[in-house]
Formats: sequence, structure tokens, C-alpha cells
Amino acid sequence: MSEAPSAAGSPAPAPTPIEFYFDLISPFGYMGSVMIERLAARYGKRVEWKPVLLGVTVLNVMGLKPLPKTPLKGPYLRHDAPRLAEFLGIAFRFHAHENINSLAGLRAFVHLQVHDPRRATELMRRLYAALWTEGRDITKAEVVCDEAEALGCDGAELLDAIQRPEAKQRLQAAVEAAVSRGVFGVPFFFVDGEPIWGVDRFWMIEHWLQHHTWSQPCHAANPADPETVG
Amino acid sequence: MSEAPSAAGSPAPAPTPIEFYFDLISPFGYMGSVMIERLAARYGKRVEWKPVLLGVTVLNVMGLKPLPKTPLKGPYLRHDAPRLAEFLGIAFRFHAHENINSLAGLRAFVHLQVHDPRRATELMRRLYAALWTEGRDITKAEVVCDEAEALGCDGAELLDAIQRPEAKQRLQAAVEAAVSRGVFGVPFFFVDGEPIWGVDRFWMIEHWLQHHTWSQPCHAANPADPETVG
Repeated sequence: MSEAPSAAGSPAPAPTPIEFYFDLISPFGYMGSVMIERLAARYGKRVEWKPVLLGVTVLNVMGLKPLPKTPLKGPYLRHDAPRLAEFLGIAFRFHAHENINSLAGLRAFVHLQVHDPRRATELMRRLYAALWTEGRDITKAEVVCDEAEALGCDGAELLDAIQRPEAKQRLQAAVEAAVSRGVFGVPFFFVDGEPIWGVDRFWMIEHWLQHHTWSQPCHAANPADPETVG
Repeated sequence: MSEAPSAAGSPAPAPTPIEFYFDLISPFGYMGSVMIERLAARYGKRVEWKPVLLGVTVLNVMGLKPLPKTPLKGPYLRHDAPRLAEFLGIAFRFHAHENINSLAGLRAFVHLQVHDPRRATELMRRLYAALWTEGRDITKAEVVCDEAEALGCDGAELLDAIQRPEAKQRLQAAVEAAVSRGVFGVPFFFVDGEPIWGVDRFWMIEHWLQHHTWSQPCHAANPADPETVG
């Protein structure tokens, strides 16, 4: 299932990464982050994490409400997220914070992308787990830096960096770029340029990785498969 | 996979149906209607169709915008619905009507539920196909009755019935009941009382029909399955 090995002497081109747009405040983004790493590992693909702010896309650009505060959808989310996490085998617990934002976390991400790229993604994994399994208040820059220190970063340096204009501008540019590509929610993936939204769509991502087209019949265990219908 | 046969002399209780909330204006509702009938047939389950109006849930109750007119999500829908239909092997074409509503169709449904229940669902299947494969304007009561006549209904009688207060009140009551159960979009299913939203979630419905719990490991071909991750 992984990329074909290169012939001797001709190095294979780097495989196209799966682009993964994330915001830390989304429980489905958190589950998507675990799922996409599992799936990518099985197909020998690299995952390229890219930040987006739901406060910008959902509230400002689309003019909608935060999901937890949307009538009907909010209560459904409360029922759906825990059962989905159980189903997927992912640790999960709702946090008790009324308002949470990921500005500090995502500014740390764009700063580390330049200065310590490997730890950028590692820190996001830690922050997702901190918020969605331990209920830590990742809105606070101190919490972000605390988690970064646990990875071996210089917490004081990072705390300073995420308050400087460079990090703010870098994040703003990243979010604008996301919006210009049509990203509106998380998890949002691009697989060979194909946009796929939602933690519900992993079967679609896997189908694409296998067949690179939508017109092939899907694999037999998929309930959507007309081949398996009597 | 179907319900256990009854012991001789003791008739088996009727299997619990899968409840399927639909509105004709949703392309995902249309695809869901085809999918759920396929899936139910494989598990010996009956599908109970129940009407809901997205104009009520999305606009009035949730205070959101129609999906096609929501920035970012609208363009994504235009890309997503055709590829999903192709993937699922379902005939699909976007219609060209600027505004469509399903009042006439759903009033015909609630009327026929009382007077000719078998044809109620058959008519909905025809209207879904009329709108989403032929682009017929099902907003018009005449089009609804035309499709009903093709099924052997008395079109003139139906045209009269869907303009009477009984049908209007019956639909209103059905929509209120849907909202009180938390139904906000389509397709929306209840499987043994468990609410499941979205054409993306058929793997979840199938898992429930097989295991009746969320804590079992899911089937091996599912990319979500931790068992299959190396």
C-alpha cells in the first residue's frame, strides 16, 4: 500500500503529503488528528499539519454560530463525540471551559514550524490531548509553553515568540490561505488536491489512496458498496 | 444478519424499523434514501420514512443559512455531492432551480401515509429521483401529482388533499415532533433509538446493526480500526 520503491540509482520523488487542516478547539479535529496519522502510516504517506481558526471561518466568513452553541446540533455533538471516540478507540473527555481559543497554541505552531519543525506537530498532538483528555485550559499561553517545555522546548523563549507580531502575522496569513482554498471546518484534508471534510470521511480518504478515482467500486466491507448488495 | 427466526408457534416481534428523516430538497437526503434501503435490505430491517423541513430546522430553529448559500460550504457541496454519488453508484445531477421547497411533496406524503401508506414512500422515491436526476420542479403541486399518477394514485384527489388544512397540520405536527427529537439535518436516522446524522455515517449504522454497542472493535476493513494499524 506504500509508495513504490525507487529503482536503483533514481531516487523516488517525495510522496505527496496528506494536508491536514486543524484547529485545537474542535473535538472532531482532535479525533481526526489521531485517525489521519494512523491511516497515513498504513499507506506510507506523510501528514502535513496546517492551522486554521474556526472563529474566523465559522463566525466571520460563513456567518454561522459555534457548533456547541447551535440549537439541536449542540446537544447532538454532546452525544456524538463521546460515542465516536469510543468507537474509534481514542481517549476523550469533554472539558468544562466555557470559552476556549487556540490562538496561543496555533501561534506557537507557526513559530515552531520555522524554528523547530519536528516539535511543531508534536506540540499540537500534546495540546489536543491536554484539552480533550485532561481538560487543560490551552487558551492560556502559559499552558501552551508548559506543554512545549515537556517536549524539550525553551518555554520562556516560546512565550515571548508567540506574543511577537511575526507569529501573529504568520498565523493570520495561514488562516487566510486556508480560507482561500475553501477550508471551513476541521478536520479538513487535501489528498492529491482533493478536498475532504470531516472525521466521517476516512473511508473516502482510504478509497482515494487506493484507487485515485471516485468511479471505482469501493472495498467490499463498505456498506456503501453496491457490489455487496444482494 | 437478519432478525432471528421465531420459534415454532411463537410469532417473532416485528423488528424495530430504522427511522429515516428526510426532506426532498437535500441531495444528501436523496443519496441517504437509496443507501438506507440497500443497507436495511441486507439486515432484514424495515425503513420508516419520516418527513422534516430543513427550512424549519436550519433557518428557524438553528438560525443558520441554507447550505447552498453558505460561503465556503456551498462551493464544497457543489464539488462533494457529485463525487459522492459517483462513488456510491447513485444517479445524480444538480437541478437548476434557484429556490425549491418540498411542502407539496411532504404534504402528499403525510396524506398518503393515512390513505395509501405503501404509495407514500414510493412517491417520495419518485420525487427524489425527479428532482435529483431529472431536475423536475417538485415545488409545484402539479408535478407532485403527476408523479403520483404515474404510481396509480388519483392525481386530482391528491391535488385537492394537499391543499386542505388536514395535510398542512399533519406535516406541521410531524416537523415539530422531529425537532423535539433533535432532528436538524438529513439524512437523519434513529437505529434502536440511537440518533445518527449524515450520509457519511453508514459505517456507523452498520456497526450498530452488527454489534449494538459502540465499544466493540469495528470491522477489519474500516480505516478507523485500531486492530488493523501496524
